[in-house]
Amino acid sequence: MKFRIKTLPLRTERIAVVLSQDDAAELGLLPGDRVKVSYDGKSFVAEVEVSQEFIGSGEAGVCSFTAEACSLTEECLVEIVPFARPKSVEYIRKKLDGAKYEREEIKDIISSISSDILSDIEISAFILANEIVGMLNDEIQWMIEAMVEVGKKIVFERGTVVDMHSVGGLPGNRFSLIAVPTVAAAGLLIPKTASRAITSASGTADTMEVLANVNLSVDEIKEITEEVGGVIAWNAATGIAPADEKIIRVEYQLELSPKPHLMASVLSKKLGCGAKFVAIDIPVGSKAKIENVDVGRSFANSMMEIGRNLGLKVATALTDGSQPLGRAIGPALEAKEVLEVMEKKHEGDLLEKALGIAGILFEMTGIAANGYQHARKIFESGKTLEKFREIVAAQGGDENIKAEDIAVGDKTYTLTSSVEGAVVSVNNKSIVKIARTAGAPKDKGAGVYVHKKRGEVVKAGDPLLTIYAEKEWKLDNAIEVANTKQAFEISGVIIERYTMGRWWS
Amino acid sequence: MKFRIKTLPLRTERIAVVLSQDDAAELGLLPGDRVKVSYDGKSFVAEVEVSQEFIGSGEAGVCSFTAEACSLTEECLVEIVPFARPKSVEYIRKKLDGAKYEREEIKDIISSISSDILSDIEISAFILANEIVGMLNDEIQWMIEAMVEVGKKIVFERGTVVDMHSVGGLPGNRFSLIAVPTVAAAGLLIPKTASRAITSASGTADTMEVLANVNLSVDEIKEITEEVGGVIAWNAATGIAPADEKIIRVEYQLELSPKPHLMASVLSKKLGCGAKFVAIDIPVGSKAKIENVDVGRSFANSMMEIGRNLGLKVATALTDGSQPLGRAIGPALEAKEVLEVMEKKHEGDLLEKALGIAGILFEMTGIAANGYQHARKIFESGKTLEKFREIVAAQGGDENIKAEDIAVGDKTYTLTSSVEGAVVSVNNKSIVKIARTAGAPKDKGAGVYVHKKRGEVVKAGDPLLTIYAEKEWKLDNAIEVANTKQAFEISGVIIERYTMGRWWS
Repeated sequence: MKFRIKTLPLRTERIAVVLSQDDAAELGLLPGDRVKVSYDGKSFVAEVEVSQEFIGSGEAGVCSFTAEACSLTEECLVEIVPFARPKSVEYIRKKLDGAKYEREEIKDIISSISSDILSDIEISAFILANEIVGMLNDEIQWMIEAMVEVGKKIVFERGTVVDMHSVGGLPGNRFSLIAVPTVAAAGLLIPKTASRAITSASGTADTMEVLANVNLSVDEIKEITEEVGGVIAWNAATGIAPADEKIIRVEYQLELSPKPHLMASVLSKKLGCGAKFVAIDIPVGSKAKIENVDVGRSFANSMMEIGRNLGLKVATALTDGSQPLGRAIGPALEAKEVLEVMEKKHEGDLLEKALGIAGILFEMTGIAANGYQHARKIFESGKTLEKFREIVAAQGGDENIKAEDIAVGDKTYTLTSSVEGAVVSVNNKSIVKIARTAGAPKDKGAGVYVHKKRGEVVKAGDPLLTIYAEKEWKLDNAIEVANTKQAFEISGVIIERYTMGRWWS
Repeated sequence: MKFRIKTLPLRTERIAVVLSQDDAAELGLLPGDRVKVSYDGKSFVAEVEVSQEFIGSGEAGVCSFTAEACSLTEECLVEIVPFARPKSVEYIRKKLDGAKYEREEIKDIISSISSDILSDIEISAFILANEIVGMLNDEIQWMIEAMVEVGKKIVFERGTVVDMHSVGGLPGNRFSLIAVPTVAAAGLLIPKTASRAITSASGTADTMEVLANVNLSVDEIKEITEEVGGVIAWNAATGIAPADEKIIRVEYQLELSPKPHLMASVLSKKLGCGAKFVAIDIPVGSKAKIENVDVGRSFANSMMEIGRNLGLKVATALTDGSQPLGRAIGPALEAKEVLEVMEKKHEGDLLEKALGIAGILFEMTGIAANGYQHARKIFESGKTLEKFREIVAAQGGDENIKAEDIAVGDKTYTLTSSVEGAVVSVNNKSIVKIARTAGAPKDKGAGVYVHKKRGEVVKAGDPLLTIYAEKEWKLDNAIEVANTKQAFEISGVIIERYTMGRWWS
């Protein structure tokens, strides 16, 4: 049947056409079915929505996303015919029944996800099947190959290309802003791509964005990396492994990230960037993505095996994921802290981790027998800060950037301890919740500064954390969260005291 | 934050608000998150969508469904605040991890589904968790209680209220159009509700609609049942157990119907209609919803146990689901065939099944020791046809309806056998595909008439099936399907013949 295009004043990130109820029934279509839309010698597959109003008989409504993606304008006359359910849905059903994907099957699924042929409901079935039934290493490998294949790729003609990545889930985990320039200062190429916060208070890309532009194309990444040795860019902007973003969007709603998907997400990005040597940070902790050391080890082994089969040299580091890294949480606060470290204003776990991860890459590539020592030497020489400023400048930022230049939220509130003792734990989830309520990552200056970490001694009245916000109402909400979600556990505290009574003497 | 309502020229069957990207970020919201919308002392929960265009800062877009459901008009000023993820999502996650639902948990899930608080992605997680992990009988019972509780109910003050239902999946399975009037003619009350086709060529409600109005409210169902003894209405129009339709809509996209959901769907509708005695038809066959007799028996046992705990007397009948019931598939063709049977023009499996199911209800209620015999007596006396016409008239149809009055599609094509032999099988799926392509269920007159069923002998040139359509182009498409999807398997056929060669003599 022929339909006249009607553009709708809406934008949903899916390829869909809206038909009148009558026309849909005429074609035997129900909402969620697929149709092939042909126009001007081209065709595409779209999901059907049915509207009881606004769309007349003979009309096909499309949102601006679909109109642009498929070059349709108002009044175009298109041919619409029912399109069989994609094969990939059948493969997902097989996995639900406990089967193993064939190489071609997982390839087909990933390509359907990338080209918006699978609906959210089908993507959620894919995620749940992989979470519950699981995936073997070769299935994950094929998934990664498929993810890389449908996206953009960077190919470096010369140089040793390395990369680093964290599995994530740890607040303040901004070591790569120090490790990347350290690695680049040693002459390696490191085209580092990173994510923005989804459920966290800041992603590496959000923190870097305080200092420079992170929305770089693959061509820009290649050019800057070849020029200054490194880059820190937002991965979703690159077009590398585009299925990843679509899967993550649905995972967010399900509050699930199956381990096979975590591996595929990290390795596909690294492979697409042209890296040959990769160091992976796996934070382990009861509330992290990897719950304990045993799971961490098996996860690390899988990553290394899959990497090997993909031609990637992978090293992994299980790291402490039980409390925030460094003391700052929130884009500007983290950027400031990272610069303070590079300016040698203070040391600590953030610097140790950065040098440790950089060191792993030095050992993998044969640059040094003791990688950590080599990294520290570069850092001490001031080359890390120098290289970082070069990278910032190459990405359009201020080449003379200093920690003191970074503005943070001017609405602040400091929470103090009402008791005396030592910090037993700092709750990652509470800290993130407070920082997000204060406005992070949207308000760059918002976040939390943690004054006391595990093992540190507090007296009554000592500051525990300071909340930074850009808006008064967000600060108020964050204070409320801080007062209800206990972020610190402090030992040596008398909770209740009973005086010995005569009745038991 | 305060937002001005902007109504959008669209209708989606979900409670949602569209915010600008900037406002969503300001509130820390991502697509799929929930917000509480307050207005004029009332409030509701909505899902967030984010639009990069059309929705300005300070505006909240709503489709007409949301506007009506929540009494919003253009320019209303509403307060929008983030709303925590509903508890029910957590319960679904627990099931994914293998847990058993508590009574309150499944109640919360069903009530969230009924009130559109769960997104399609979350409903799909619910379906997949129940399919893969499974549900125990008491969990299914609680699910049914919750489904009935949130919907409309019929309470009969007097009379013995019975009902019948098929688990479905069998083309031509229209026995209840004969069984309901037979049961009603014996003085029982039978407020039968039935579904429309989703993936089949006709549902009982589609077939009945050829003769009468099936969009009846619970009040109309009660009134007609008390007046003439029975009714055949469309279940979704009643408002009984409304969560069922929402779950089925997502199941359709997943091509899944978990057995616990099948049971809950059937029993919740029957319970909501006020039935005390229920006969359940369970078609068994390799391509039916119930794959084999063993699965059928365990399914039947669960249905009976769950029914008992709900205060329902349930009898089940495993029936042949391997080939269509009767010979007609499609709304008008089936209505015609049912009337022909009642007019005693021919007998066969359709009549046998109708009398068998009616007989089960006669035995359950103590009306007769040999229920089948009693049902046949009523049928032979002409009371079945008489009562059917009363029901049709009470539902606004023609009280003198005759088989010959029913119009079927005038575009026809008959497929003949090219070989000689006996029919080994008739493929349900192929028959349904041909009938749907011919226009069923939308085009009431479209469908398929099966001339030869299993065991019947065919000669070359004998008609196998006739396709009926209302439109020439649909007939052409259906012929193409009939020529590619083999609907009949015929034995005694020489596929290839080899002449004995000298080389092996």
